[in-house]
Amino acid sequence: MTSTESDGDYHSHHGYIQDQDRYKARLKRIEGQVRGIHRMIEEEQYCIDILTQVSAVNSALRNVALGLLDDHMRHCVRDAVEEGDEAAEAKFTEVADAIARFAR
Amino acid sequence: MTSTESDGDYHSHHGYIQDQDRYKARLKRIEGQVRGIHRMIEEEQYCIDILTQVSAVNSALRNVALGLLDDHMRHCVRDAVEEGDEAAEAKFTEVADAIARFAR
Amino acid sequence: MTSTESDGDYHSHHGYIQDQDRYKARLKRIEGQVRGIHRMIEEEQYCIDILTQVSAVNSALRNVALGLLDDHMRHCVRDAVEEGDEAAEAKFTEVADAIARFAR
Amino acid sequence: MTSTESDGDYHSHHGYIQDQDRYKARLKRIEGQVRGIHRMIEEEQYCIDILTQVSAVNSALRNVALGLLDDHMRHCVRDAVEEGDEAAEAKFTEVADAIARFAR
Repeated sequence: MTSTESDGDYHSHHGYIQDQDRYKARLKRIEGQVRGIHRMIEEEQYCIDILTQVSAVNSALRNVALGLLDDHMRHCVRDAVEEGDEAAEAKFTEVADAIARFAR
Repeated sequence: MTSTESDGDYHSHHGYIQDQDRYKARLKRIEGQVRGIHRMIEEEQYCIDILTQVSAVNSALRNVALGLLDDHMRHCVRDAVEEGDEAAEAKFTEVADAIARFAR
Repeated sequence: MTSTESDGDYHSHHGYIQDQDRYKARLKRIEGQVRGIHRMIEEEQYCIDILTQVSAVNSALRNVALGLLDDHMRHCVRDAVEEGDEAAEAKFTEVADAIARFAR
Repeated sequence: MTSTESDGDYHSHHGYIQDQDRYKARLKRIEGQVRGIHRMIEEEQYCIDILTQVSAVNSALRNVALGLLDDHMRHCVRDAVEEGDEAAEAKFTEVADAIARFAR
């Protein structure tokens, strides 16, 4: 874990927590979609139809990531800016790296 | 299903079938990764750590898609070219659409 | 050059040639868009407006790439399949690599 | 222009300005690369070689965008957070939209 967060008291700072149930529901749905792709392969379905499903999962995951990133900026990054220069710089570097990994 | 495939006799033409077990294992692993992300959200882990996992799943899915596409071209597309112009054109359009969906 | 093409006689096989003028016009337009971004930076325009333009160029380039890939498959790859197994395998590997580079 | 920036006095707030010359040089190089692709099409070079160049330009543009985004967050977004809630919310929405456009 590369977390720079400290402890439970600050959990409420994670931006996504207020939408935790919605994120969990989305992940459950994605898990079901992945299981569906597994089944399609098992049933020897047509390659292009499988690819369509893989693209759908990719889109769903990208939307989750964009949401998490948005929440992260509005909460953790903002808190860090208010905390001071050093904390802010660390968060900005972390966010930039996350975006770069994600935009590849 | 948008499949243009006909019937069971041709199943062996799906390029990925020869690697079916390997694809199934990869999907199982991806399903586990998605479940792991669900757990991270439940445990209120740090947003950036979750994003890192989402990127990992995206990469894994992209590799599955690239593999399926490669197998598809070497088998279904090739068969279609040997079958004649009309079959080939249909397959090329289908593949181009799949790549476009995927490269967005 | 990693070209596996042989000589001038086969130039007409490059799928994009029949649309050469259209591709050239698109590249000219993209060049103008890139010059526009340069100007925006020079005029110290707002970062987000510049990013919007960068995204537009990326989309335009992606569409060019998808078009070239499509043309390539319908011509070079198809010819290779008709030429025989070895030629076909080489082309399929080449296309898969191009898609992977592109989908990163 | 969707710019929410006001006037010249604040130009120094654009994060990228301190690297303006470096960004301009990168854009000049990208412009040259695009012109190179135009020439490759004119010279009827091999499709896959052209695609390789298109991928290279896409990478170069993506790196410019990631740099601009990073600079934007460290300056404009940070200033907005210090300015207050409303300004911050507007900037976060703007950045999230830019990332979404870019990650598509």
